[in-house]
Parts: sequence; structure tokens; C-alpha cells
Amino acid sequence: MNDYISDADSQVTVNLASRSYSIEIKPGLLNQLSKALGSFVSNEHVILVTDSNVAELYLESVVSQISEIAQRVDVICVNPGEESKSIPVCNELWQQMVDFNTDRQSVVVALGGGVVGDLAGFLAASFARGIRFIQIPTTLLAQVDSSVGGKVGVNLPSAKNMVGAFWQPEVVLIDPLVLETLDEANFRAGLAEVIKYGLIMDVDFFASLESSADLIGQREPEVLTRCIARCCQCKAAIVEEDERETSGRRAILNYGHTYGHAIEAVFGYGRFLHGEAIAIGMTCAARLAREFGMVPDSFVTRQTELFRKMKLPVDCPAERHDELLASMKHDKKVARGELKLILPVRIGEVVVLAAPEDQLILNSLKN
Amino acid sequence: MNDYISDADSQVTVNLASRSYSIEIKPGLLNQLSKALGSFVSNEHVILVTDSNVAELYLESVVSQISEIAQRVDVICVNPGEESKSIPVCNELWQQMVDFNTDRQSVVVALGGGVVGDLAGFLAASFARGIRFIQIPTTLLAQVDSSVGGKVGVNLPSAKNMVGAFWQPEVVLIDPLVLETLDEANFRAGLAEVIKYGLIMDVDFFASLESSADLIGQREPEVLTRCIARCCQCKAAIVEEDERETSGRRAILNYGHTYGHAIEAVFGYGRFLHGEAIAIGMTCAARLAREFGMVPDSFVTRQTELFRKMKLPVDCPAERHDELLASMKHDKKVARGELKLILPVRIGEVVVLAAPEDQLILNSLKN
Repeated sequence: MNDYISDADSQVTVNLASRSYSIEIKPGLLNQLSKALGSFVSNEHVILVTDSNVAELYLESVVSQISEIAQRVDVICVNPGEESKSIPVCNELWQQMVDFNTDRQSVVVALGGGVVGDLAGFLAASFARGIRFIQIPTTLLAQVDSSVGGKVGVNLPSAKNMVGAFWQPEVVLIDPLVLETLDEANFRAGLAEVIKYGLIMDVDFFASLESSADLIGQREPEVLTRCIARCCQCKAAIVEEDERETSGRRAILNYGHTYGHAIEAVFGYGRFLHGEAIAIGMTCAARLAREFGMVPDSFVTRQTELFRKMKLPVDCPAERHDELLASMKHDKKVARGELKLILPVRIGEVVVLAAPEDQLILNSLKN
Repeated sequence: MNDYISDADSQVTVNLASRSYSIEIKPGLLNQLSKALGSFVSNEHVILVTDSNVAELYLESVVSQISEIAQRVDVICVNPGEESKSIPVCNELWQQMVDFNTDRQSVVVALGGGVVGDLAGFLAASFARGIRFIQIPTTLLAQVDSSVGGKVGVNLPSAKNMVGAFWQPEVVLIDPLVLETLDEANFRAGLAEVIKYGLIMDVDFFASLESSADLIGQREPEVLTRCIARCCQCKAAIVEEDERETSGRRAILNYGHTYGHAIEAVFGYGRFLHGEAIAIGMTCAARLAREFGMVPDSFVTRQTELFRKMKLPVDCPAERHDELLASMKHDKKVARGELKLILPVRIGEVVVLAAPEDQLILNSLKN
């Protein structure tokens, strides 16, 4: 079934009982889709969701390959960018799915970055109360984070990812070679999530990122493949422990995210890429942890240095801090009105801290 | 825990592993909510969703009772009627939930009929990727059908219930005494779903409905309580076998519904109540089954007579049959472009029939 995967490639399994699936990571995979999808699509109706940037590069080839195995392929192409992750866009696309005669046997395939995956996943989770769903992530951020674990959804004007579902894909197909066409800013932003895995759970991985920062920056395919696989292993382990973010374990993935979501919401989704916002957010969180004496100054320095080496921003804008605080208090990780933050205790370990004082949060926003 | 339930009352369990829950049926239950909800709400934030008709009758009392056990109660009150089950309404209400500082520990309580339950359930299923949900159905239709089994969702302009989820409630609290305030048309419409259980799976129940039709029409509380409990048992048994409508077993609950949804969509949700539309739909389905020789004429007569006795419509409007056919082909029960219909073989048993010819469907619409 998976004989097209050679020894050099990676396969990570996410064990979730009846919702288990595999993540396949292989350079060149995007040119072997009819084989790679063969176990999942056989004469089904496929709705391929993508954005116009990705479409320009890959749509023709991908549609042609899927058409070999599908009954028919309908394409939904959205505008690139966070603005497409909205209810008004969903409303149009649900109607488009009806017009495509989409039914419960149809399969949604997401080809794109985090926005496309989150949006397509929510369309799949909600159409006809849930249809099948496959992820083909094309950005580093989507490959190491958003395509794995089943979190799908869209934004409300005042709150990111506030409407959505846990809806697991049937398979995730990752081709590290597509990163060659990713613009520098988005590649760097994806590295913020890569570094996050080191910070929250894997000190050896963090050290290897420090030592291979240059090769990673040059997008060396073998190094990237190993990096992506390590991230997917980390993510799979956490998702297996806490699929629906109920035990608190999965919450550690949100290191930097409560700050980051607020930064994106307050300053507009255009000003910072998600990865940039969470690099700033992790920096704020580290400062707050230092304030509590949870980490020494050297932790903040080491974390900040790797972000800088990867050309990621670490400074929060100096204005609108009251709005940032208010936005953080609307975050989904708020429980019973009490804000909870993920804070580091050392490289490779974070904890949940409940209800820090407003003034301390405001201080942590200052560079 | 349930000591407020006396022997005369009924409790039905829906066994769905970690998603199991109980349905409690007791005259007067709506005045014992702080006890009945005590195991489910303790100092949580509650969002009570209702409509203005129900609010007028019960809101003050219900809010007061829930306030005894909740941290705070916020109320969402929608317009009565199917028009509220829409994405634009959801979009407003999601935002309202943000404004209420709703978080993952908040609980949505649906107080109302099928529209309120379906809408509130979808809000609960989708807000912050899913929060807890309790059903207090106040119409016969909701008590015997829509509040049990976890189907939640809203309509698209061209397709009923097309956006939604399977999202099980934590408990269903049914007070048959609230039916005293239900208008005659909605009470009768609910009886269509009651009769449906007899037709699809329980010939003895069907016979008891025939023999106690007058008492039921007079809304005799004890008879109604037994009726509702029997319906909930039937529904629970099917949902336990096929929670997500994948094996085909759950599809039998849709007897009359493919026709009925098309009738509602084509003629507008205002012209027929859901129960009225499916009474017509079951009549059409019975005629189609007779055409195939699956049931004798006496079946159609017996079914039609009980509908008539309950003052339910059985005649499909004579116009726009081509539109009805087209709408039926958009139904969620279509698989790989092939329409499937639930047809009777005898009182108490139905089967799934795939791909009947268009002309036969059109014939079945004629009275």
C-alpha cells in the first residue's frame, strides 16, 4: 500500500483509535498523488480546496493526478490570506458544495497552507454533518503544525479560530520540495512553529535547530524532511494524549499563541504572519516566566537568539497594549473567565499558569 | 442523583460510550430544573438559547431556576421559525457568545422546539470547536425526535440541515406538561414523527396509536408520557446502532424525509410545518412502495387513515413537481449522485431503495 515510500522517507502515525491516520513525508510526493491517494480515493467525488497562489503553481498537475483515481474533481479556489477563513466565505463555499452535488461520500482535499487547511477542514467537518477530508499542506507552518491533529475552523471578526471543530484528516501528505517555492517570510514564519516544538518538549531538537540553522535557512531538503518528521512526531504524541484539548496536555502546543492570536486580531491579520505573531508571543511569554522567576535570563536570551537567527520578529509593537490584553481574555484557552498562559520552565518544558495579573501581562508586552 | 424521578416517570439511556446520556421524561420537570440539572451545571456559565414564543411562557422561571446553580445565565432569544436556522443568524450568535465571554467550560442549554435545539446544538458544536450542550425540548416534535441523537445544524437557502454536526447533548429533559401550551398545528405535526416510529420499527406501537388516537389528541398527560418514552426508546436504539448514519440503520428514521425536506424547501419553510411535510412525504413514499409492489393498497390506506385521524395533511401540492424532484436529488441521503429512499414493506418495517426512476418519483407526488 505504501510501497512508494522508500526507507529514506518518513511516515508518522497518529494513533486515535477509529480516527487514526498516517502522515507521509517524502520529497517529490506531490508528483505521486495518484499512488499516494490510491487507498483513500477510488471513484469518489473530490472537492479540491486551494488558494490562487498555490493554484498557479500546482493546481493543474494535482487535478490531473487526482482525476486519474476520482470520479470527478471540483475545485474551490479562495483568495490567499487569513481573510478567507471567515463565516461569509464559508457561507458561499457551502452553497458551492451544494451546487457541485457534494454528498456524504465526497472527499475534501486541502491543498495549501494553514488557511486553506483550516477552512477546508471546517467545510468538511460541517457539510452534511461531516464528510471525509485529506490534507496536502504546502507551507512549512501547515506541514509541521496545522495540518496535523484535526483542529479546523475559521475566525470571527473579534476572535481567531473561534468557530470550528476537531475533525481528523484521513491522511496527511507532505512534500518538503514544495517549500522551495514558498516565499521567505512564510518559510521563516513556519520556523517559529518548528522552534516551538523544541521549546515545549524536545531540548535535543532545539539544540539541533541551533546547530543546523544555516542549512535550514537554505532549505536543504534532507534536513527539512528530518525537521518536519520530528515536528510531526511531537505533534502526534501530544494529539494522541489529548485529542480534544481536554486534559490540558494539548494546551502546551499553544505556547506563545494566546499572545500571538491577540497580536493578529488587534493589529490585523495582514500585519504579522501567524508564525511571526507567535514568535513575538513566545518572547512575551518567556519574559513573563522570567518575571515569575520560572526561567533565568539566559533562557530568554537563548530563545530570542534562535528566533533572531531565523530572522523572526521578537518585539511586540509598542502601542494598543490594553486592546491586546482584552483580546487575550477572549481566547479559547480562557476557562471560567480565567486566563491561562503556557509558560516555559526550561528549554523543552512548559507549564500552564492560571490568572496572571493584568499588570504583569502588560509588562511582558514591553520589549 | 435522580431521586426526583418517581416510578411513574421514565428514563431512557442512550448508550454511546463516552458520549452516553439519559433522557428524562417527567410531567412537571420544567419546575424542577435546579435538581434535574444539578449533576450537569455547577457554577458554570450557561447560555440559554430559546425563541420569543417559548420565552414568553417559560423564560423567567427557567432562568431563575438555572441561576440557582449556574455562575451566570446569558440568554440568546431568536425569532420563532425555521428562518432562524441559518448561517447569518449563527454568525450573529457566535459573535454574541464571544461578547458573553463564553469559553470552553460554558454550557449551552436549548429551551424550545426543533429549530432552537438544532440551532443551539450547532452553536455548541462549533463554538471553540465544541462546548457542552443540554436539551430541554418544548414541542412534541423536539421531544420525540430532534432533541435525541445529536443531529444539529442549520439550513442553506437551497438545502435543509446541510451544515451541521453530530453533537450529543449531556442530558435531555422532557416535560410532557409543556405540550399543554403548544398550538394545535404544532402538536399535530409532532404526531407525524410519533406515528413514524410505529411505521418504521414498531407495529404494536402503531396499533396503540390507532386505538388511543382520541386520548392523544386530547393530550392526556399519562398517555403522552408513555408515547414520548416509547419514541425515545425507539430513537435511542437506532442511534446506538448507528450514531453517525454510516451503516444505513439510522437512515430509516428518514422515512418520508427526503420528500418532506424537498416540500419544505420548494414551497418555503412557512407553508408546511416539518411534521406536516413529512406526513405528506410518508404518504408519497408509501405510494411509491405500492407502485413497486412492496406494500399492498391496504398499507397505504391504514397509514393514511391514521394521519387523517391525527388531522395531518397527506396530499402533496399539485404544482412544481419538477422542482421537488430536483430538490430531492440534493438531499444528504444522496450517495455518489444516487438518490436513496426509505420505503415501507409492512407496518413496522422499512427498507432502503436506491435510484428509483424519476418518472416513478414524479408519479408518487400525485394524489
